Formats: sequence, C-alpha cells, structure tokens
Amino acid sequence: MEITLIGSGNVATHIAKACLKAGLPIKQIWSRTIAHAEALANQVGASATSDFSELLPADVFIVSVNDDGIANLPITDTVGHSVIVHTSGATPISVFSGKFENYGVLYPLQTFSKSREIDFREVPLCIEASNETALHVIEELAGKLSDSVYLINSESRQTLHLAAVFACNFTNFLYTASAGLLAEKYLNFDLLRPLISETARKVQNAEPADVQTGPAVRGDESTMERHIKMLDAHPQLREMYHLISAAIKSTSV
Amino acid sequence: MEITLIGSGNVATHIAKACLKAGLPIKQIWSRTIAHAEALANQVGASATSDFSELLPADVFIVSVNDDGIANLPITDTVGHSVIVHTSGATPISVFSGKFENYGVLYPLQTFSKSREIDFREVPLCIEASNETALHVIEELAGKLSDSVYLINSESRQTLHLAAVFACNFTNFLYTASAGLLAEKYLNFDLLRPLISETARKVQNAEPADVQTGPAVRGDESTMERHIKMLDAHPQLREMYHLISAAIKSTSV
Repeated sequence: MEITLIGSGNVATHIAKACLKAGLPIKQIWSRTIAHAEALANQVGASATSDFSELLPADVFIVSVNDDGIANLPITDTVGHSVIVHTSGATPISVFSGKFENYGVLYPLQTFSKSREIDFREVPLCIEASNETALHVIEELAGKLSDSVYLINSESRQTLHLAAVFACNFTNFLYTASAGLLAEKYLNFDLLRPLISETARKVQNAEPADVQTGPAVRGDESTMERHIKMLDAHPQLREMYHLISAAIKSTSV
Repeated sequence: MEITLIGSGNVATHIAKACLKAGLPIKQIWSRTIAHAEALANQVGASATSDFSELLPADVFIVSVNDDGIANLPITDTVGHSVIVHTSGATPISVFSGKFENYGVLYPLQTFSKSREIDFREVPLCIEASNETALHVIEELAGKLSDSVYLINSESRQTLHLAAVFACNFTNFLYTASAGLLAEKYLNFDLLRPLISETARKVQNAEPADVQTGPAVRGDESTMERHIKMLDAHPQLREMYHLISAAIKSTSV
C-alpha cells in the first residue's frame, strides 16, 4: 500500500510517523512550502513536492491540510481509482463528492504537537467511506495504524469534533488562564500540574458529572463572590466564572 | 504526634489515610453526623464523636469542614496550646486569629473523591502558620505526608485556589459538557478519553499557551460558525463557545 500525504502539519507529521512504524511506506509528501515538505519527507524517506502536477500515482492519498483547503485540490486525475481520505473532524465526507470515485475520512481524535511523541496505536481513528471499495482500503489502513477504529458518519463526527473542542481546546485555554493568574502573583505553575493530571485521570473511569468538585457544585456562595471580586481586572475570565459556575449549578440540581 | 480530625468528607478522608500511611495515629474524628465519623474512624483506627465537648486533647487538630464552618468551632479550650490547621484554599489564616494561639493552614492542592486512591506524597501541600511554634509542627506534619511542601501566604493561596477552580472544577465541567454532547448522538465517551489524557499530559512539560490547538487559535471561522449553529439547543454552551473562543483568539495575537 503506497501512501502519499497532502500536507505537512501536525496531523500529517504524526500520521507519516505512524505509517513508517506500521511498515507502510510514504511515497510523496506535498506541502505548499517546499521546505516543509522536505523536512517531513526526510524524516520518513519520502520524496517532496510543492507542485500538484508532480504528484505520482499512489494507493492512498491522505489529505491533512486546513479545512478550507480540502475542497479544491487539483488532483482528481492523479488520484483516479485510488482512495483519497481527509483527516478533518469538521469536514463532511461530501466535500469529495463528484470529484473522486473512492473516498472517505480518517479522523484521528487526538491533539497533536509536532514536538511530542504519541502512541498512535492508542489514538481513536474515526473512519467513513464513500463505498465498499474505499471502506475496505481505509479499514485496512486504519487497523494498521491504531487499535481503536470506529466507523462514524459525518454528522456524528462533527458532534465528536465539537465535543473535542470543549474537552481539549477549551480545557487547554482554562489551563492557560490558571497559569496566567499564578504568574501575576509569581506562583509556579508546577503547583497546579498534579491537579491537572488528576482531574483528567479521574474521568478515565468515571462520568465527569459524577466527580465534579469545587465551590459551584457545593453551593459555596461566599467563595464564589470572593473569586469574582478577584477577577475584577480580567473581565473575560470573570464572565467565564459566572457562566461556568451557573452551568455547574444547573446540572447539579 | 497525636492528630484529631474535625470533618469526615473527601479531604478529611484522604488526609486520614495519608496520616495512617505515614505512621501518624489519628486519635479522634469529629463529624456532625456520627455515622460519618464512625465510618472513617473505623478505617483508620480512631474513635468517633459528633459532640465537640467529647473531644480529647491532641497535638494537632486538622479542620476539614465546609468553609463556612471553620469560623465558629467551639473548641478553643480543647485545642489550648496545641496546633490547629484548616485545609481550605479559600479561607485566610486570620479566620483563627484571636481564637487560638498556634494555628495555621495545610491546604492540599488536589481534587479528592472518596472512592479514588491517590498518592498523597505527590500532592502539593501549601502551608502557612501564625508563629514559629505552629510553623515547626505544621512543617513536620506536612513533610511526613507529602514530598511537595510550599510555604504560601493567604493572599497567594487564594489566587491558587481561584486558579485551581479554572484548571480543575471548570475543566471537569467542560468534560461533562462534551460527554453530554456525545450522549445526545449515542456516541461513547470512550472516544474522548485519550484526548482528555493527552491534553493534560501535554502541559506537564509545556506552557499551556504554547500548545493551544483548535479552530479558534487557527482562526478557522467557518468551523466555528458551524459549531455555534450546532449549539442552538444549548444556550449556555453556545455562550461559552463564543467567550472562550474569543479569549483564545485574543491571547494568541
């Protein structure tokens, strides 16, 4: 199974390394910036290009570019009867409809940073396919990369992606907010790191609603009032405090 | 060092077990509800009471009750020259001023659930003391319970507590929100659990602002618009989406 990657960002990088580990050769890597294509190609023994017309035939084309870039790739003839997948949680499978014959989605539900190693076998892969031919190839590829493969349609995948924004992106912002509050008082963020770990560990075996702690769920109004006063200089955080505390109170009743 | 615990909730339970593990005997456990006092007392070989007048002398009294309950404990004579500490992040040390001679704070910066085992040696303990005598005792006690002991004054501790509400309580609410969104579409929360783990792991060695991902930091407006439409039936979550996305955008510029 020869694989070509369209894109060289975080997701493309982790998929390329996971393919290499699974014994799947990467043939070519395309990036708008040739230096980016080359940097990743060198790591996985592929060739690099920034020119769509230089793309060679392959069995699978994996598209990991910005969501807006997925729709208008000028590679219909190159892909031909081969399979093309995108890796976006937010983009429906129909983005490829009418342009390709055998297409689908391979969405890794994880947050990727280029510099962090990750065990790709533990990453849930949400797959979808336009037909049985595509499904067969995508299932085989996904199974070689991860132990957790889920067949998920576009509507459910968009819900997953939205939920992931809350569970990951917004959560990371709350970490940033807490680090900022500490920094103002010259307190070390290390003080909070064990708490952050344990908060995430707790929900690995529990429903989050069952392990909610803190002043809002306890109804500790005097602490909440004092906290809100402390956020006088941070109107955005103050509004979040109000909003999330109200939501916690309303779900806990 | 003989220890008596005022309270039998999550924090009291974990402190009692940590004391036992550290070879520090618990003499008595007080709880308003005798059955709660007895349940914990049985686990750690202490005696139980729900009557303040039955409290016997001890070297240290650890107060783990609701924040509002800390102020008016009728145990001034029983404590005498011994040391009394509370375990609240939100309550200043001055709550004990004028009532006791040797007092302070022992604030474990962690989220506790009764049913979860925790390695108390990894829990950051923030201590504060009214004088050198109290400090000596509290430092000795804290050092026996944890490897991370920080001397933190009341003002800084309140900042820590506020930051912990963001990093833990509010984060857990975001997990709850994401689980709720999945449940509506009959999707399994297991799909998100690896993402939640990795999001917390990432900031163990990085500054959270440096590892922010997602549509808001990428400026992916079309995805954000679609997400907001998907939240039509969830006005509280929709408002959070607006607010946190705006905050991510403003910190990323």
